[in-house]
Amino acid sequence: MNLMLLNSDSIENNVAKISGRQFDHLTQVQRLTEGDFLNLGEINGTMGRGKINTLTDEHATISLELGAQPPKPLPITVILALPRPKMLRRVLQTIAAMGVKNVYLINSSRVEKSFWQSPFLQPEAIEEQLILGLEQAKDTILPSVHLRRLFKPFVEDELTDIVGGSTAIIAHPGAKKPCPINLNSQVTLAIGPEGGFIPYEVTKLSAIGFDPMHLGPRILRVETAVPALLSRLFPV
Amino acid sequence: MNLMLLNSDSIENNVAKISGRQFDHLTQVQRLTEGDFLNLGEINGTMGRGKINTLTDEHATISLELGAQPPKPLPITVILALPRPKMLRRVLQTIAAMGVKNVYLINSSRVEKSFWQSPFLQPEAIEEQLILGLEQAKDTILPSVHLRRLFKPFVEDELTDIVGGSTAIIAHPGAKKPCPINLNSQVTLAIGPEGGFIPYEVTKLSAIGFDPMHLGPRILRVETAVPALLSRLFPV
Repeated sequence: MNLMLLNSDSIENNVAKISGRQFDHLTQVQRLTEGDFLNLGEINGTMGRGKINTLTDEHATISLELGAQPPKPLPITVILALPRPKMLRRVLQTIAAMGVKNVYLINSSRVEKSFWQSPFLQPEAIEEQLILGLEQAKDTILPSVHLRRLFKPFVEDELTDIVGGSTAIIAHPGAKKPCPINLNSQVTLAIGPEGGFIPYEVTKLSAIGFDPMHLGPRILRVETAVPALLSRLFPV
Repeated sequence: MNLMLLNSDSIENNVAKISGRQFDHLTQVQRLTEGDFLNLGEINGTMGRGKINTLTDEHATISLELGAQPPKPLPITVILALPRPKMLRRVLQTIAAMGVKNVYLINSSRVEKSFWQSPFLQPEAIEEQLILGLEQAKDTILPSVHLRRLFKPFVEDELTDIVGGSTAIIAHPGAKKPCPINLNSQVTLAIGPEGGFIPYEVTKLSAIGFDPMHLGPRILRVETAVPALLSRLFPV
């Protein structure tokens, strides 16, 4: 954790009161004590630092000095075939850490049905992973994660508007074109499941303007492909 | 697993005999049976396909049709401050999957001493992760992974020769220069521990030609930074 993220309802008059995981991190990992400073941010707000006023066995009060803007988001919407639950958690952290703010988790022929039953898809479970990613990267703006359990109506009824005027890319091993670098445009990036989108799905996505592109001859796992793609697509 | 990798000592006269993890994958995950084909490669050799001749409860014999060359390696040597054991396993997989063939795991001030005691540093444990990465990516060439438990003698006595005429980069959050893209040269890439190299270490590395470069304003975990860096540095 490089930045502790606070809920706005834990803040009153520029003083935060924390407990639970964050309190444990403060006292047991960072080993801070009264008078110490730490990096803090408010979820969907500004960031800065705080000074520990009081520390008990279960909670801490912290005076806040916020006001710095979080880093700029990446101009991208990620359309991701739902990964297996364990991988989903890491991918959500990565996506949040790298600055993605719009994510659609969608169904695809090669997504196992059981993945949709995972407790990690509960809103609180998703938010927990996103916050871990933001706290790692030093960002405050929570990404929006949308679940779409039906591929066809999502693509036919919704995706055209999501794409808008953006550059629409399918990350697709074996495609003819290489993934572009350092784009200045808005991007919509579709990433298939392990094994890839099936030809029908590629055809449906291509019909609304998506272009299949590859990352080289190697087949990467989703959790590796996501940072590799995001890192190539935009300038740093 | 997109390619099953075989030890050369399991192959005789173009017939492989497999058991254990790979046999289980064949029968339980891929659910193959006699007469079926699968993608196969020989460790440090060529790749192609195989046909299942016989299948018992514990092993399979497969006729091999190999001969295709594995994808080209990335022209890079990675110098990585030893990550925590759980992360190490994933990073080794990623490194193998993305085509890195030379890795030095080194000590650094912020590497916890206990990490060096991890059973995941045993040669067989390292090889297991590398093979998983190669089987994912469809490659056969096993990376060399070297352990260096002393930072100073490694940098002073060995690293200059490793760097040779390559472009030497330290991935360093907060550096002034951005990480370059699509290099055509050989690269030596140093990646610090969580929290980064300490200033003394950056100075030592800079003295032999390493240049600190950043990946943007966000601080990434090592397992995210590795694919992000490898993906930017070289054309796909």
